[in-house]
Amino acid sequence: MFSNILIIGCGLIGSSILRGSLSKKISKNIYVFEKSKKNISLIKKIDKKIKFLNKIDRKVSNMDLIVLSTHMSQYNNLLKKLLIYISSKNLITDTGSTKRNIENLIKKNKKIKKIFIPSHPIAGSEVSGPEFGDKNLFKDKWCIILKGNDKPKKNLKKIEIFWKKLGSKIIFMNAVEHDKIFSVTSHLPHLIAYNLVKTATDFQRKNKKNIIKYSAGGLRDFSRTAASNEIMWRDIFFNNKDNIMNSINIFIKNLNNLKKLIKKENNKNILKILKDTKKVRRQIIDLKQDISKPNFGRDIF
Amino acid sequence: MFSNILIIGCGLIGSSILRGSLSKKISKNIYVFEKSKKNISLIKKIDKKIKFLNKIDRKVSNMDLIVLSTHMSQYNNLLKKLLIYISSKNLITDTGSTKRNIENLIKKNKKIKKIFIPSHPIAGSEVSGPEFGDKNLFKDKWCIILKGNDKPKKNLKKIEIFWKKLGSKIIFMNAVEHDKIFSVTSHLPHLIAYNLVKTATDFQRKNKKNIIKYSAGGLRDFSRTAASNEIMWRDIFFNNKDNIMNSINIFIKNLNNLKKLIKKENNKNILKILKDTKKVRRQIIDLKQDISKPNFGRDIF
Repeated sequence: MFSNILIIGCGLIGSSILRGSLSKKISKNIYVFEKSKKNISLIKKIDKKIKFLNKIDRKVSNMDLIVLSTHMSQYNNLLKKLLIYISSKNLITDTGSTKRNIENLIKKNKKIKKIFIPSHPIAGSEVSGPEFGDKNLFKDKWCIILKGNDKPKKNLKKIEIFWKKLGSKIIFMNAVEHDKIFSVTSHLPHLIAYNLVKTATDFQRKNKKNIIKYSAGGLRDFSRTAASNEIMWRDIFFNNKDNIMNSINIFIKNLNNLKKLIKKENNKNILKILKDTKKVRRQIIDLKQDISKPNFGRDIF
Repeated sequence: MFSNILIIGCGLIGSSILRGSLSKKISKNIYVFEKSKKNISLIKKIDKKIKFLNKIDRKVSNMDLIVLSTHMSQYNNLLKKLLIYISSKNLITDTGSTKRNIENLIKKNKKIKKIFIPSHPIAGSEVSGPEFGDKNLFKDKWCIILKGNDKPKKNLKKIEIFWKKLGSKIIFMNAVEHDKIFSVTSHLPHLIAYNLVKTATDFQRKNKKNIIKYSAGGLRDFSRTAASNEIMWRDIFFNNKDNIMNSINIFIKNLNNLKKLIKKENNKNILKILKDTKKVRRQIIDLKQDISKPNFGRDIF
């Protein structure tokens, strides 16, 4: 499908793209540009065929597809370097979790605007690094591709085929819609998980009790989410702050309402809320976003 | 160890005690008092040796140990009936998730005060019902037993041995301490999960978008917790409301602080918070409250 693919930034996501591309034979040659020496030595073990770039130089002009899978805060510098060598023959995509910021970056430059098709695979984990990558990470997962009238159709099609080959299900969205939806389904949940663990540690410090050892009753599951990469999440929180602020406000309003219902022991209204959320769980399972197998703590069964 | 055990309320927790007791031969006879016909027919399939009580009558006076594993809101009625038949020869324990309310119930009656040793096994799931019970549910899990000078030592010892036979690790606490700790490690996380799913459905209704289908990016994990039994959690929220109010207030204060840091793009302070929560994850794994195996969504790997 491609002759040369370049993956810039080869952590969990980049190395999963790498493994999937090798497995599905998506490109004749696969190049990696990665700064961490530790990561490079881990990536070398994946396959002998992988080629490495030491710097962004004229070689990038030969790349049919360049995939940015670094932290989003590095895009600006990378694009400046790439701009020196790329032309309308190249194609760029990315894997960042917010999209309006990427669109703002792209629209500054006519050349990049046509060849950069941003995307966001909805896949990941609390761990980072190429050692955790997996060729099936994107299998049966949504991948959002940004639509836009300024993009040549053939470029959109190529990116669509690329993610389909990696196993993703494709949805086209605009950046505004994307950032709004994921502020609720992903960014707020992560922020809330961080905040919950912070609240527990504040309590522990103040009360001088080791409460973490009793975390199996609920806190444990949040702590997993709150162990996600801090640079990645700072970038997300800063780049989607308007939507996240808005989500936080609705969340606090709802929480104050729950507090009031508990205080008044309002049986009817609290049961309604607690029952309704169970229906959402059913929808999530029906939509194959999770499995129905019950969880008893991941250390048993 | 015991001649006769009676389990009152045989759902997920009760049937796990039942299965564990059968497996470890903790009692010569095991009796079940359960109101749901559906549950009774499921329980009958577990073992032919299980005996059933149709009502609370004079037979309960022969029980060495009575385990309450109904919803806590049923304790009051049950204790009234039990009081007619029990004496200092019997022993009662329970599995409820809050403890000050139980202590208040017990202290009203001298007879019950000495023979009721409340306990709280830190184990469970989002699912309910005897079909999900497991003999190993309590294995290597904490079980909190309420200490108290008004309890005969031999009674405390018997309850300790009972839970140890089921595989639990024992901690003695008083009710005030228990309710404070679990308001943070368990009750607040559940309330937050319910509130997060509620916030997402509010957003979905308002924006007329199916956002649930993109829940794999974080919301999914919270939806599992928010699918827990609504009667159980209403009972917990109402019975521990002072501590939960307090936890909510600290949580909202922290969330408003995070909001401010995001608004100002305060890089240093936000990275500190996001990094510190990662250390808690390490502690939770070291304390064997979770496994370190990364999670990529439970449908793959």
